Amino acid sequence: MARSDRPKARRPAGFVDSPADLVTERATAVETLVGTYRLWGFDPLETPAVEYLDALGKHLPDVDAPDQGVFALRDDDEQWIALRYDLTAPLARYVAENRQSLPTPFRRYQVGPVWRREKPGPGRFRQFTQCDFDTVGSASFAVEAEACALLSAALEALGLPVDDHQVRVNDRKVLNGVLGASGVTDADQQTAVLRAVDKLDRLGVDGVAALLGEGRRDRSGDYTEGAGLSPDQADVVMAFVGAGDPSRETVIARLADLVGDDATGREGVEELTAIAAALDAMGVGEQVVFDPAIVRGLAYYTGPVLEAALTFETVDEKGRPREFGAVAGGGRYDDLVRRFTGQDVPACGASIGVDRLLAALRARRGESGRATGPVVVTVMDRERRAEYHAMAADLRAAGIPAEAYVGTQNLQKQLRYADRRGAPVAVIAGGDEFARGEVQVKDLVAGAERSDEITDRDEWRGDTTARHDVPRADLVATVTRILGRR
Amino acid sequence: MARSDRPKARRPAGFVDSPADLVTERATAVETLVGTYRLWGFDPLETPAVEYLDALGKHLPDVDAPDQGVFALRDDDEQWIALRYDLTAPLARYVAENRQSLPTPFRRYQVGPVWRREKPGPGRFRQFTQCDFDTVGSASFAVEAEACALLSAALEALGLPVDDHQVRVNDRKVLNGVLGASGVTDADQQTAVLRAVDKLDRLGVDGVAALLGEGRRDRSGDYTEGAGLSPDQADVVMAFVGAGDPSRETVIARLADLVGDDATGREGVEELTAIAAALDAMGVGEQVVFDPAIVRGLAYYTGPVLEAALTFETVDEKGRPREFGAVAGGGRYDDLVRRFTGQDVPACGASIGVDRLLAALRARRGESGRATGPVVVTVMDRERRAEYHAMAADLRAAGIPAEAYVGTQNLQKQLRYADRRGAPVAVIAGGDEFARGEVQVKDLVAGAERSDEITDRDEWRGDTTARHDVPRADLVATVTRILGRR
Repeated sequence: MARSDRPKARRPAGFVDSPADLVTERATAVETLVGTYRLWGFDPLETPAVEYLDALGKHLPDVDAPDQGVFALRDDDEQWIALRYDLTAPLARYVAENRQSLPTPFRRYQVGPVWRREKPGPGRFRQFTQCDFDTVGSASFAVEAEACALLSAALEALGLPVDDHQVRVNDRKVLNGVLGASGVTDADQQTAVLRAVDKLDRLGVDGVAALLGEGRRDRSGDYTEGAGLSPDQADVVMAFVGAGDPSRETVIARLADLVGDDATGREGVEELTAIAAALDAMGVGEQVVFDPAIVRGLAYYTGPVLEAALTFETVDEKGRPREFGAVAGGGRYDDLVRRFTGQDVPACGASIGVDRLLAALRARRGESGRATGPVVVTVMDRERRAEYHAMAADLRAAGIPAEAYVGTQNLQKQLRYADRRGAPVAVIAGGDEFARGEVQVKDLVAGAERSDEITDRDEWRGDTTARHDVPRADLVATVTRILGRR
Repeated sequence: MARSDRPKARRPAGFVDSPADLVTERATAVETLVGTYRLWGFDPLETPAVEYLDALGKHLPDVDAPDQGVFALRDDDEQWIALRYDLTAPLARYVAENRQSLPTPFRRYQVGPVWRREKPGPGRFRQFTQCDFDTVGSASFAVEAEACALLSAALEALGLPVDDHQVRVNDRKVLNGVLGASGVTDADQQTAVLRAVDKLDRLGVDGVAALLGEGRRDRSGDYTEGAGLSPDQADVVMAFVGAGDPSRETVIARLADLVGDDATGREGVEELTAIAAALDAMGVGEQVVFDPAIVRGLAYYTGPVLEAALTFETVDEKGRPREFGAVAGGGRYDDLVRRFTGQDVPACGASIGVDRLLAALRARRGESGRATGPVVVTVMDRERRAEYHAMAADLRAAGIPAEAYVGTQNLQKQLRYADRRGAPVAVIAGGDEFARGEVQVKDLVAGAERSDEITDRDEWRGDTTARHDVPRADLVATVTRILGRR
């Protein structure tokens, strides 16, 4: 193929490859999360990556048209289909489709990739993994309390104890009540206020205040229109946002005060009161707090919203220390199944962002070690390959990942290959060894400090610290012993 | 929302949901496969679901245009992107992009969904899971032999012993050589012959013979144009297709005879000879055979192709007994990386179709048991919920999946719920039990035969075979004992 006809080897912007270390880390974390969800009484479900666009609905943050924010195309029957943007909308479709055959409440977990058609940027990916659990069919606020407790338990299971995390709960009805009490009753204006408050983390108090009023121009010159609140109204909202406290009771009292007689607001306060009682009944401690600044972007939440945040400090892209922040979000979405069926089906759940969580685990534990590769049985004499394959087979039979080298390079390059694979051990056998009924077992970790200088096989022979000449029959025992030392 | 505005709760055709049993089965099978791949010296890799269309290339069976057969759309920069149709094309892109930093050979496994925009039909899905391993950067035919041995080992690890499976190997160069020796040299005509032979399983000898000649009209009336071979040429191809034998040596001798002096054909026979020698060196037995009828549809294979088939009988949709058939396919694709870089990068690997494999495991083992749900701690007295939550927490601390009921129904419906969840045990405690410091532990499996007749709590009380009244302190021990009996 002529050079100019060749496709370029590149990925679409916002999509990344995960090499071995990351795949292994992710699989380990997912196993822990899923194991915890299962322990708490949730069963697995998998829905397809593709759904009808109308089934997904218009719920993404800052998105107004159904095909905005998603990867959509026309199916062969001209209907619009799209990659799911989360695991909740497909769950609602599944429950609506299978309601008759499901237990009530229906408790499922799901883990998998989701896709968002956003402008890619540093740390903003267009495919990422979510790990969700939801309870569909119960209006009890014990469900919210359990979701908080389970998020906390899942993070603990991952090695992020209660000192390192916090689950924050709010109720959108309270904010709507505060707005109602201040005369802000227009639904679009209320949505604009939610969107502004949702940006507190990113924009700070001043940025949010600007978005509540006239609007805000960012550094790039882009202008975002404001919610159009009067200064007094904006002050009330900012007081609400700042009403957090470590004591759940104290927050409830403050919010009751702020909503006054507004019916929606009082309903929100009652919901928080019910959640607080259930949390107490579950013995859940101070790691679950009520925080009026929590909004969560997705449009389908109808009342309580929650997020799990990691509270330890990390450094942002500009080197400033800041809290690591949210790794999970959730809430109650009582209307999502009704969209399909017209029947009331209360539902509540939460979603852990697995990739962000992995970043947090790395920040907490320090960079993880390099993944360990297989034992590499080098091939010096192709006529003897049956014997090399038998060595690899013996190691595998003992549960030790091993391969007989299948490339076409010389021994020196085979040893470099073993190094690049992160092989803990290389096995070498040539005419001399076969004559003596021996093999040479090379401890590559012990010998690592010398590996850059190696130029030929004789140098390896001289390095006795990392080299073990053992009878062929002792191969597996020798490798097992070397691996056991780590 | 008015009834007419409601979206319908349905999936796009060809996409399915996987309920709990299937998710668990799939996860278990994947864990076994991946564990075996790792044991044989392959490391994990994950590429995104979405690739540039030109990076995927035009390699699908029976597809001539790049955007046929795939789900494609224009990205924001107007470039075409698409869901991957397999895991091999993305691997080639990944290797071309990262060649400098990868070991040679590069050995990776990947598991994940792939998508094909085909006409959906019974058993034909548009999303399915593949589990691949590949070795990139080695021209040695030891790679093909190892792929056969690993496929066999993976199937054995899944409980499908060598008596139940067969790995079948062929070399496309041999068929091309046979065609060359018969004067069929046009590349398009050769491709048409490959496509015809690939349908042997589905259409039988007569159907393939028709496709090799004039063409064939199927029962629905659709006409498929033939490869246009003369009757003599078609006879040679059919002789080639029928040249299989349990002895690898015998097949090689027959093929050497059929290709005569054709250079491409002789090359193919030499490749099979090298694979046979490597298989012998690995001690691989009769479960790996050479079968000239194997073609594999994907266009990127350049020489050896292979498939793993399950040999036990099953019944087809018309009730006729037939071999279960292929669950994995693979081969050598030496040109797939060169498409990007212009450099020769030999490569070979195989892909297991996980969903078909699960169907096979089910056919072999019989329907698997229902997945076991969590222990359900029923809630009779909401004022006591702290005590119910403590019971669930105690069970979880012992590693037993458990939930305190979070719905809003009465006890009778809670017990029905426990049944529908497949709960092995339900825990009941009301005023009487609390007064005595006891709990009622209900063995739902032992009591299953009665569960349909239960109308109220008193009936449960009377059923002592499945009911254990024990001190609260003995709850965990009692449940553990009941679960241990299964």
